[in-house]
Amino acid sequence: MDTIGFLGFGRMGRPMAHNLASAGFQVLGWNRTPAKAPPGVAEKRSIEEVARDCQVVATMLADDAAVESAAHVLYEHLPRGATHLGMSTISIALARRLAFEHAARGQRYVAAPVFGRPEAAEKKLLWIVTGGETDGLATIFDALGKVSLSLAEPWQASLVKLTGNFVILSLIESLGEALALVEKGGIDPREVMRFIGSTFLDAPAVRGYGGRIADTELEPAGFALVLGLKDVNLMLKAADELRSPLPLAGIARDHFLAALARGRENWDWGGLASAIRESAGLSPVRRG
Amino acid sequence: MDTIGFLGFGRMGRPMAHNLASAGFQVLGWNRTPAKAPPGVAEKRSIEEVARDCQVVATMLADDAAVESAAHVLYEHLPRGATHLGMSTISIALARRLAFEHAARGQRYVAAPVFGRPEAAEKKLLWIVTGGETDGLATIFDALGKVSLSLAEPWQASLVKLTGNFVILSLIESLGEALALVEKGGIDPREVMRFIGSTFLDAPAVRGYGGRIADTELEPAGFALVLGLKDVNLMLKAADELRSPLPLAGIARDHFLAALARGRENWDWGGLASAIRESAGLSPVRRG
Amino acid sequence: MDTIGFLGFGRMGRPMAHNLASAGFQVLGWNRTPAKAPPGVAEKRSIEEVARDCQVVATMLADDAAVESAAHVLYEHLPRGATHLGMSTISIALARRLAFEHAARGQRYVAAPVFGRPEAAEKKLLWIVTGGETDGLATIFDALGKVSLSLAEPWQASLVKLTGNFVILSLIESLGEALALVEKGGIDPREVMRFIGSTFLDAPAVRGYGGRIADTELEPAGFALVLGLKDVNLMLKAADELRSPLPLAGIARDHFLAALARGRENWDWGGLASAIRESAGLSPVRRG
Amino acid sequence: MDTIGFLGFGRMGRPMAHNLASAGFQVLGWNRTPAKAPPGVAEKRSIEEVARDCQVVATMLADDAAVESAAHVLYEHLPRGATHLGMSTISIALARRLAFEHAARGQRYVAAPVFGRPEAAEKKLLWIVTGGETDGLATIFDALGKVSLSLAEPWQASLVKLTGNFVILSLIESLGEALALVEKGGIDPREVMRFIGSTFLDAPAVRGYGGRIADTELEPAGFALVLGLKDVNLMLKAADELRSPLPLAGIARDHFLAALARGRENWDWGGLASAIRESAGLSPVRRG
Repeated sequence: MDTIGFLGFGRMGRPMAHNLASAGFQVLGWNRTPAKAPPGVAEKRSIEEVARDCQVVATMLADDAAVESAAHVLYEHLPRGATHLGMSTISIALARRLAFEHAARGQRYVAAPVFGRPEAAEKKLLWIVTGGETDGLATIFDALGKVSLSLAEPWQASLVKLTGNFVILSLIESLGEALALVEKGGIDPREVMRFIGSTFLDAPAVRGYGGRIADTELEPAGFALVLGLKDVNLMLKAADELRSPLPLAGIARDHFLAALARGRENWDWGGLASAIRESAGLSPVRRG
Repeated sequence: MDTIGFLGFGRMGRPMAHNLASAGFQVLGWNRTPAKAPPGVAEKRSIEEVARDCQVVATMLADDAAVESAAHVLYEHLPRGATHLGMSTISIALARRLAFEHAARGQRYVAAPVFGRPEAAEKKLLWIVTGGETDGLATIFDALGKVSLSLAEPWQASLVKLTGNFVILSLIESLGEALALVEKGGIDPREVMRFIGSTFLDAPAVRGYGGRIADTELEPAGFALVLGLKDVNLMLKAADELRSPLPLAGIARDHFLAALARGRENWDWGGLASAIRESAGLSPVRRG
Repeated sequence: MDTIGFLGFGRMGRPMAHNLASAGFQVLGWNRTPAKAPPGVAEKRSIEEVARDCQVVATMLADDAAVESAAHVLYEHLPRGATHLGMSTISIALARRLAFEHAARGQRYVAAPVFGRPEAAEKKLLWIVTGGETDGLATIFDALGKVSLSLAEPWQASLVKLTGNFVILSLIESLGEALALVEKGGIDPREVMRFIGSTFLDAPAVRGYGGRIADTELEPAGFALVLGLKDVNLMLKAADELRSPLPLAGIARDHFLAALARGRENWDWGGLASAIRESAGLSPVRRG
Repeated sequence: MDTIGFLGFGRMGRPMAHNLASAGFQVLGWNRTPAKAPPGVAEKRSIEEVARDCQVVATMLADDAAVESAAHVLYEHLPRGATHLGMSTISIALARRLAFEHAARGQRYVAAPVFGRPEAAEKKLLWIVTGGETDGLATIFDALGKVSLSLAEPWQASLVKLTGNFVILSLIESLGEALALVEKGGIDPREVMRFIGSTFLDAPAVRGYGGRIADTELEPAGFALVLGLKDVNLMLKAADELRSPLPLAGIARDHFLAALARGRENWDWGGLASAIRESAGLSPVRRG
């Protein structure tokens, strides 16, 4: 069976690497903090050791800086003809640069960012958006979830990933404002949320985020608030480059800052609802 | 079988009155513009003629002014013990006033605003939110759809109706911004919409509004843009009274105004996406 | 010397009526709460008693409702050919209605809203914006301040008054955000304010509002926060009617609501800076 | 007399370098595009040639990238004990880095960003904000304008520069919205601007920007729109780092993008008013 490299054993990367191993791949892995490899994955001490023996190396790292730093090693050590499969959420500018730099070395950059929280990663239920030529990668995707949208260019996949996160973020902001309003009207927000989530917005993301906001269960983080700020800044950078205003992102950004100004770095990104609650004169988390 | 009054034969009211007649009620109806009654409904020449013979009169009228004007006739002519069943989207201030004034005359005001577009009204698939005591009204609700949430006070039902519309409006705004962004990135927004609507936001309202925005099919109106502005102003008034900020409503309001500044009164309220498109340098509706 | 009526002895109206008396007018006055007349003004028990003996009656009342209520008495009791001089800040819709209704009775409505805080009213330093024909009113204006802009229609003067308040409000919002930012950067906002107010924004309103915000002296009110919310809502209504978005008004409105959600009705309208400070993680008013 | 280095002969740098030469300094200059040196300035072919012979080198360059690139040469070639005097508008993060890196090499970084348009630079009327120890720099500042605020840390001076630009930008946004509103009300915005600029906001920046917006004279650029976007992004980055929301910056940013989406890179930054006008259904520039 094929050998595949996997960089990054965070909340998402760990179950993904594990699923690749379970699907029969020989997985060589690396993580900045060592000894995090899931069962079945052979952990290496450096990216270089992973890169030189693989035809495909997937990256699932925290941010642009981490991906770019890993990419510099891949540029040098990935064989000609090999593929860097970028699954992290990164800026469209970096995605363009990765595609250019790998191509200049006879390597291939394919973007494949994913939608889904850690539970979905574990259950192989991720929705994958690909960008670029994906020949020969089907079995990898099958081990992780389902390819739901395929685009011509890697940076376009990054753009759709950021856009999808923007829509989810708008939903968080909207439900945060809506549920503060009804609570100020003496109505139980949990009942309103059950109503919305079982009628005109009967979707998993609505029930998931809405339920947590209604319950003010804003910790622990599935996706940390401080990472949410990072993502909204990537959305705004994409909006800049493409000359396309995103006023809702601006509003959410200000609520992230207000939550972070109170030291809530490690709350879930749904925790921006705490700042909305405070603007309405409610306690950040409901008491009792 | 019971007699019921029904005021207002607009896009929503007409199929609702028809369903009540089909369910076996004797329906006495009235509309400002005459000769609009659906089959099975006995049309009267004045609200007074409807009111004096009914134990229940439902109102499904355009706005606060129309409801308040009808209510003045009902105060005078509705029998003691009879019920005014308010199904329109109105301000929470008016809902409070109606409850007070009817009670002062030994009458009852019950709020029962509905969610669903005209097609849902036809198919008896409306989601009904009730506010106040609903004794004896179950068969009426059964003929129209389903009671999905019951609240103590009439004005609270009006608040939840406005809040629900706020969440839908936020979704329209969010998808409008998101799809302009991807279109500026050279991606077909219809593909992105199919992806979003079949994965993490797999809900009817998302597919409905998102599909129309992606196709830029912003006419004819299911719910007219100029009524959308009226509703967003009701949301903002509720936010005022309850001291609960709604920044997303402010953003959508400005896009309504920008669309109306170009004379788009009769586009669908999803047509606020046209103003977002123009801010991104796109034509209001995609050509060719 | 001429007789003039004056309705409303609030913070602004009282010194204005006094200045008219000092200038030699015989002033007949009325206030909802009695016994507030300044020296030299003859207080009457009803608007009717004022109206029937005057060729000019000025109104300086709190809001649309108060002005409209007084206007109903003036319609009936003001002599034909007499003038209602509207100096309050009112909606453009009400200004249009007053012009129409007075004209229908052979009376005249002239708008003359004023800029300036109570201190400026005392010193006859108000800036007056007139709307409509002002024949024969020059000596009145001279007793109060200076006509600085003259417009054709009464409602246009109301629009310019609201627009001017919008610009001041934007300044408050801008300085509120700016001074919170520098304070978070460890810089004394009072020094920054002195710098701004003595260089590129060397204007009285900047130094006045900026100084109070920098000092966080947000009480007592020169112009109360709850009246600020009223005014911003009048601005937004004008924006609605004229189809012209005002996003800055939306932002300020949300900060008013956030401040009011904490019960700050009677702080100065510059007190919206307290809500900005809290969003930045600062105490609403600087301690020590 | 002393020798001073000066990097950057743009709209601002050229008159500043000239003023230093006129004040008796021996000025060694460099610009990316050669042959731009003003009279009296000795142009060198590289930054290195400037650096090695100067105890003070001032930088007045376009953006962070240009400053950082020049700084790498200065780190290496500036004598120990010499001063890098940063006068450009840069990010607070870069200002911190420059202070750290120069100190590590026994050099000094002093920030001295300036307020004023090119005309003010010519007339030695710049307002200078200093950050850090300014011993021995007084004669330089005297040749350029006036030190109006002195702060402890270089990055704090950068923060005040960005904050000042934020206040000016808010003013542009506010006047843009206000003047569109009155124009929709059939009032000449030039008259309203004269009124505002001669009464409660009687300040040069108000009359300057307001006049251009009222006249819709949005070209040529004193400060280009595309640089305005750069600056607003620096403001937002500072807001991020300091956890202090700036919603007005978000609004202005979206209007910059809307103007840039129509290709207005080289309009003045006051040209964001064109996007506001279009949202109100007005032509971007008034015709006839």
